[in-house]
Amino acid sequence: MYYHDKRLQYPVTVEKPDPQFARMLQQAIGGVEGEIRVCMQYFFQAWGNRSPNPKYRDMLLNTATEEIGHIEMLAHAVALNLDKAPASLQAEGAADGIVGAVMGGERPRHVVEGIIHKNLLSSGLSAMPIDSDGVPFDMSHIYASGNLAADMYANVAAESTGRVLAVRLFNAAHDDGMKKMLHHLIARDTMHQNQWLAVVEELGGAATQVPIPNSHPQSEEDSENAYRFFVTSLDGTAPEGRWTSGPSIDGKGEFTVFRDEPMGDVPNLGPARPDSGAQNEQIGKA
Amino acid sequence: MYYHDKRLQYPVTVEKPDPQFARMLQQAIGGVEGEIRVCMQYFFQAWGNRSPNPKYRDMLLNTATEEIGHIEMLAHAVALNLDKAPASLQAEGAADGIVGAVMGGERPRHVVEGIIHKNLLSSGLSAMPIDSDGVPFDMSHIYASGNLAADMYANVAAESTGRVLAVRLFNAAHDDGMKKMLHHLIARDTMHQNQWLAVVEELGGAATQVPIPNSHPQSEEDSENAYRFFVTSLDGTAPEGRWTSGPSIDGKGEFTVFRDEPMGDVPNLGPARPDSGAQNEQIGKA
Amino acid sequence: MYYHDKRLQYPVTVEKPDPQFARMLQQAIGGVEGEIRVCMQYFFQAWGNRSPNPKYRDMLLNTATEEIGHIEMLAHAVALNLDKAPASLQAEGAADGIVGAVMGGERPRHVVEGIIHKNLLSSGLSAMPIDSDGVPFDMSHIYASGNLAADMYANVAAESTGRVLAVRLFNAAHDDGMKKMLHHLIARDTMHQNQWLAVVEELGGAATQVPIPNSHPQSEEDSENAYRFFVTSLDGTAPEGRWTSGPSIDGKGEFTVFRDEPMGDVPNLGPARPDSGAQNEQIGKA
Amino acid sequence: MYYHDKRLQYPVTVEKPDPQFARMLQQAIGGVEGEIRVCMQYFFQAWGNRSPNPKYRDMLLNTATEEIGHIEMLAHAVALNLDKAPASLQAEGAADGIVGAVMGGERPRHVVEGIIHKNLLSSGLSAMPIDSDGVPFDMSHIYASGNLAADMYANVAAESTGRVLAVRLFNAAHDDGMKKMLHHLIARDTMHQNQWLAVVEELGGAATQVPIPNSHPQSEEDSENAYRFFVTSLDGTAPEGRWTSGPSIDGKGEFTVFRDEPMGDVPNLGPARPDSGAQNEQIGKA
Amino acid sequence: MYYHDKRLQYPVTVEKPDPQFARMLQQAIGGVEGEIRVCMQYFFQAWGNRSPNPKYRDMLLNTATEEIGHIEMLAHAVALNLDKAPASLQAEGAADGIVGAVMGGERPRHVVEGIIHKNLLSSGLSAMPIDSDGVPFDMSHIYASGNLAADMYANVAAESTGRVLAVRLFNAAHDDGMKKMLHHLIARDTMHQNQWLAVVEELGGAATQVPIPNSHPQSEEDSENAYRFFVTSLDGTAPEGRWTSGPSIDGKGEFTVFRDEPMGDVPNLGPARPDSGAQNEQIGKA
Amino acid sequence: MYYHDKRLQYPVTVEKPDPQFARMLQQAIGGVEGEIRVCMQYFFQAWGNRSPNPKYRDMLLNTATEEIGHIEMLAHAVALNLDKAPASLQAEGAADGIVGAVMGGERPRHVVEGIIHKNLLSSGLSAMPIDSDGVPFDMSHIYASGNLAADMYANVAAESTGRVLAVRLFNAAHDDGMKKMLHHLIARDTMHQNQWLAVVEELGGAATQVPIPNSHPQSEEDSENAYRFFVTSLDGTAPEGRWTSGPSIDGKGEFTVFRDEPMGDVPNLGPARPDSGAQNEQIGKA
Repeated sequence: MYYHDKRLQYPVTVEKPDPQFARMLQQAIGGVEGEIRVCMQYFFQAWGNRSPNPKYRDMLLNTATEEIGHIEMLAHAVALNLDKAPASLQAEGAADGIVGAVMGGERPRHVVEGIIHKNLLSSGLSAMPIDSDGVPFDMSHIYASGNLAADMYANVAAESTGRVLAVRLFNAAHDDGMKKMLHHLIARDTMHQNQWLAVVEELGGAATQVPIPNSHPQSEEDSENAYRFFVTSLDGTAPEGRWTSGPSIDGKGEFTVFRDEPMGDVPNLGPARPDSGAQNEQIGKA
Repeated sequence: MYYHDKRLQYPVTVEKPDPQFARMLQQAIGGVEGEIRVCMQYFFQAWGNRSPNPKYRDMLLNTATEEIGHIEMLAHAVALNLDKAPASLQAEGAADGIVGAVMGGERPRHVVEGIIHKNLLSSGLSAMPIDSDGVPFDMSHIYASGNLAADMYANVAAESTGRVLAVRLFNAAHDDGMKKMLHHLIARDTMHQNQWLAVVEELGGAATQVPIPNSHPQSEEDSENAYRFFVTSLDGTAPEGRWTSGPSIDGKGEFTVFRDEPMGDVPNLGPARPDSGAQNEQIGKA
Repeated sequence: MYYHDKRLQYPVTVEKPDPQFARMLQQAIGGVEGEIRVCMQYFFQAWGNRSPNPKYRDMLLNTATEEIGHIEMLAHAVALNLDKAPASLQAEGAADGIVGAVMGGERPRHVVEGIIHKNLLSSGLSAMPIDSDGVPFDMSHIYASGNLAADMYANVAAESTGRVLAVRLFNAAHDDGMKKMLHHLIARDTMHQNQWLAVVEELGGAATQVPIPNSHPQSEEDSENAYRFFVTSLDGTAPEGRWTSGPSIDGKGEFTVFRDEPMGDVPNLGPARPDSGAQNEQIGKA
Repeated sequence: MYYHDKRLQYPVTVEKPDPQFARMLQQAIGGVEGEIRVCMQYFFQAWGNRSPNPKYRDMLLNTATEEIGHIEMLAHAVALNLDKAPASLQAEGAADGIVGAVMGGERPRHVVEGIIHKNLLSSGLSAMPIDSDGVPFDMSHIYASGNLAADMYANVAAESTGRVLAVRLFNAAHDDGMKKMLHHLIARDTMHQNQWLAVVEELGGAATQVPIPNSHPQSEEDSENAYRFFVTSLDGTAPEGRWTSGPSIDGKGEFTVFRDEPMGDVPNLGPARPDSGAQNEQIGKA
Repeated sequence: MYYHDKRLQYPVTVEKPDPQFARMLQQAIGGVEGEIRVCMQYFFQAWGNRSPNPKYRDMLLNTATEEIGHIEMLAHAVALNLDKAPASLQAEGAADGIVGAVMGGERPRHVVEGIIHKNLLSSGLSAMPIDSDGVPFDMSHIYASGNLAADMYANVAAESTGRVLAVRLFNAAHDDGMKKMLHHLIARDTMHQNQWLAVVEELGGAATQVPIPNSHPQSEEDSENAYRFFVTSLDGTAPEGRWTSGPSIDGKGEFTVFRDEPMGDVPNLGPARPDSGAQNEQIGKA
Repeated sequence: MYYHDKRLQYPVTVEKPDPQFARMLQQAIGGVEGEIRVCMQYFFQAWGNRSPNPKYRDMLLNTATEEIGHIEMLAHAVALNLDKAPASLQAEGAADGIVGAVMGGERPRHVVEGIIHKNLLSSGLSAMPIDSDGVPFDMSHIYASGNLAADMYANVAAESTGRVLAVRLFNAAHDDGMKKMLHHLIARDTMHQNQWLAVVEELGGAATQVPIPNSHPQSEEDSENAYRFFVTSLDGTAPEGRWTSGPSIDGKGEFTVFRDEPMGDVPNLGPARPDSGAQNEQIGKA
């Protein structure tokens, strides 16, 4: 079960509210690389974890719980960017401030253009679980496969795209408070990338874990094609690299190049059944 | 641009059609771990690839093109499992066969229960771009970040969950033709897992690539917190492992444990604006 | 604006309630071929209709309004199939009837398996705006392009897939009341297919309307490729038919066959920008 | 920020695992009436709360944090129902147990039919953020309007449909552990329904809060139609009740009945523009 | 079944077309607080209504039918705002008007920026069933639970967020015709809020209806926790209010405060099964 | 199976990159009228094709394969419009170019406003499988009904809305390279519209194919209502046209006008069941 502290994980301040930047921050909340995704992903991986060793569930719970605090920080940052932060300026804001003008009815076009979105109309200038284009987050992005190594790589991918996003936001930010908040989130992504890779390494690295799942006997796969790079380019040339020759990364095979060609037949499903809702011509009825 | 050969990449046969297994195979077509996902993911990564070295675009195109053939194989397998494969049995099937009975109007309940889904009603017993629960694939699952290393880990995750799925289908299959098809797909997933990890290794591995993106100076992140495992457990105990002590995986820091606590204040957005659509009590109006 | 009559458009009765059939009927409510789709599609086409002749708006409104009544009929049919229709049997149904058993807590497995879905849990045995797999209808399927001819073909497609679905349901139905309701809906789909094609014919047919939009001067398209069938098959053979030779359907060109080949260059986006969140290796930084 | 305790909020045990019931429980996790919805809804309402009085943010945080623990309990219940609970039975389960048979490859049809869904293929017999039909939860269901009273009614609605769902699951459950878990969740829903209504009452009830938002002067609405029940029935009869006569609930008007009729004109958008992609006939071009 | 009148429910005029405002109005059509939602919600509640008293079905049908007319009005308003309203100005519009410029190819950037969305490209400057960010409405937002009181609160919530939205649009509007249309819609929301609350009051109010569903014996819930406010704040302080002491709103209990703590154990799912697609290390295989 | 050539199907060049136009082009990639839709639709129609004549599968494969190349061209065009095309200008671009300014941190507001979307944050200035509003494409738009004629009309609709979209983009484009690319795509849509109509004509046209499906005996439909135009307008007037009198398009009936009226009864589902989660008042319990 869970507890909260009313304070934020890390300071969040905004000196110059910027509705455009608020919208960009939404990507870090409800984007597929965002914090709702990692938070829920780690929770579902923890809750469904099966292992003789309970420490993986514990580890995942710690980081999942940390991530709720990240969503909270970003939600606060969005609200501050949509608002005049100091309460004493609000009356003035409503009269002639940039955002306030919109609410007050004057609505200069060049200002409105940036913030007519749902954050104004649907949430009253607060954060929403949507991305920077207003698309709501959908939970199919929670990858929890029941396979620990697959999940760790999914987590590395999530934290890598997450840190890429945070860096892009950092580069776009002009407010010192926002830069400070982001430089903390970037650091935590550094830790989390290392953390998930550390699990793979602790378990023996690629030599032990790959191909995932390692519990399926490789004798039952089509071993002839297990370490071949398939070339589909009509000119037959392969883009050469670490993946076209030498030992495979898992140490269980040798990379080679194969010019791809059909090994199967032309498929033919034959005529449609009577009463299947097809046309007579498909059924072969005159 | 692209070409096709009418033949299949690999043989696909079904001796004993099984509508239930057809539905399970749908997960490998339109599930988030399925073949549409990897096919489109590699295409978009290729088409958007920016690099001084054009070989990454080429490599991605080869594998993306291979994956179209995988969707095709699975779509054929679904249709065969929903159908009597040999054309000469179709008339009989319509009269008294298992699936045919449904179409012919007799509909024994125990048979219908498995296949009332959209594959019958919407596609006339063919494959659809949906998962095993009938949920259509949605393209937000195409991860193409513009960062090569982040994309490679996203691809490893995709091929890992993909091979886990293929193994589960292999274990559930009872038809030899289906087992043969799956043992080929499992092998290709082995190759692709190795392939994407090979790119990371060619570029120098974690020591060079992590934290992703490596183009952002680490001096600009909150370095104090960049290699700390945050503990949120109220009892203060950390699940110890490779991630709590020793050098970090990227070789740029040292793992330590930190008992998490708030570093920020209690957030307070103050009263709502007049005319913002809030209640009077939020605005502070009597 | 709109009015209602409490009575149904057409009689809907069920003698032998069948929860499985209720689920199949859901496809005709919330499936992409279903009645919500055509109803809303015709309304939005009407409401956005621009034309010197107001009769197209009128015609669309008549049929859109008729379609609300179809959703209503199907919703009633779903509820009846999930229920014991005669009120006097309800007490008995709760005790030992097929569906009632589920609600009463006994839940024989073979019965429950068919109806554990959202119609039980979320709506209390009534219809929902979902398809036969429980996927909610989403309004992106409302095609209203602002082009009258494009819309008419979208409507023909909707009524064609809709009639295919209704026929499949008719073939699967075993209750006389359900067959009667469906034989009415099938007839209305016949009318509507003819109706939308009649608009195209009234406007002059393909010779006047195709290629859609006909307001764009064909001199501004790549006329060399406007009536060529492109062959991508590696063996170079074209599937011959009405589309490979002879005058085009719109009468404005002659069908020919073209063996497809690249007319463009190899694309190359070059290195990534500094500060773009890419890896150093993509940027070309040492 | 947030903390966790490794223990569960309330005991969760399963004596007789039942994959069908696991699927039904998914509705309480990822259904629109489920726990992810209320958890995230209360969090976003808290994080965006604007008010002179900070206690509303605090109150919402307490209940949001409690709800994470509910998701956790249900996720554990799903995993237990998909599994043989006692660890010592697992080997046996794989050999001849009900669920195990599926994984081991024997797959008796009548068992498989219930659990071929994504919980098997995608998560390896664990909980997922999906509903009982496998549809992933989508965050557009998080209602946080920036208006406190509107949010409270949205919360009452969420807890009401949530308790209805929990009662249906309680009635369907046959395992004592599951009944016990649900009888706790039902009680918490009782509290939360009362809690949100208590906020409205504390603020003065309908007399002060309705119509929501109460900050918009009612003099600016079409007051003639503000308390009229519009009848669209062609027979002109109104369903009489508390809503057709007597003082309105907010005490600011008197209910009356109005037979609806058009007050506007026939809309006409005129011809389409040249170059708008319409047909010539819409533009009025010969 | 249903009928239409070609005229609008209420006058809709626009003197100064404003594409930005058209986009904002889209939220009232296809947003989760919009008119499609309430229209379809009331229809599905009516069509699935079970009650000894048929008047609830009738009442819901009247209001659902009214709401179709609201969608129609808003759709007309969107089209007018995307267009030059007076037909005689269209030619001029195409040449040098604000919107026309876009279609004619000149496209001054500051104008285009607001309307490059789907309303231009996909519908030819007409309304679509999308929200102000272009996200299509999805029917999972139709709450029809089979429980009358739960549905009434869902309707109050819908009309409350709906009126909040309409007020925000009214405040943002600068065209007198738009203000007039909105002041009618705001009034109807006033009526509908009162109407749904009137149903609850007619049935006896909270004392009779809460906790919803009232058909489940409260003796079967965890009564110890049914009226306790759970505090998860680590400092143990409760936000005091009507919800922490005194009689509960339903009159069936007494509010108290409880400092939350775990009542359950640490969950442990044990090792994964062989052949489940997990890693060897999870299974406990050497 | 499939092959690729590294070169593009047709030349794609951009002289003056325009981020706004990049966003508009996204509609042609991931919009419901876009190229992913037709590509995948033709593939699934081909893979599920049942017919005595295999040429329909072949024909569909040729055009599906062609369409991959269209997505590729558009993806390249989006990337070029988001970028400074000539590599030598990139450094300058980062310093003071229009787009580069954003990445470099200066971010003049009027520039940022157009491109804060996911193409910047999520893909690093490349194409994504989303539409012009950032909504991801979802595969429910792949219509493959198992009925050849229904599919052909769905394809005509897709190519018609597709060509309408391409024309709107052509009219909005100001770059010669973009105009050239689009004039090729417009021509291909011309061919494809003709191609799908050619299939219907080859099969005998409406006289043979309509009503779709033609395999269902029309004697089993409600023939009285199969060619009647239903009028729901309260004034009873029909919008007269080809659809109100004369022979039907399929030649199998005669169009007439029918003033719509209820043929069914008032539906009544009676009281709710005990234990169904309804309110006592619905069940009829005192």
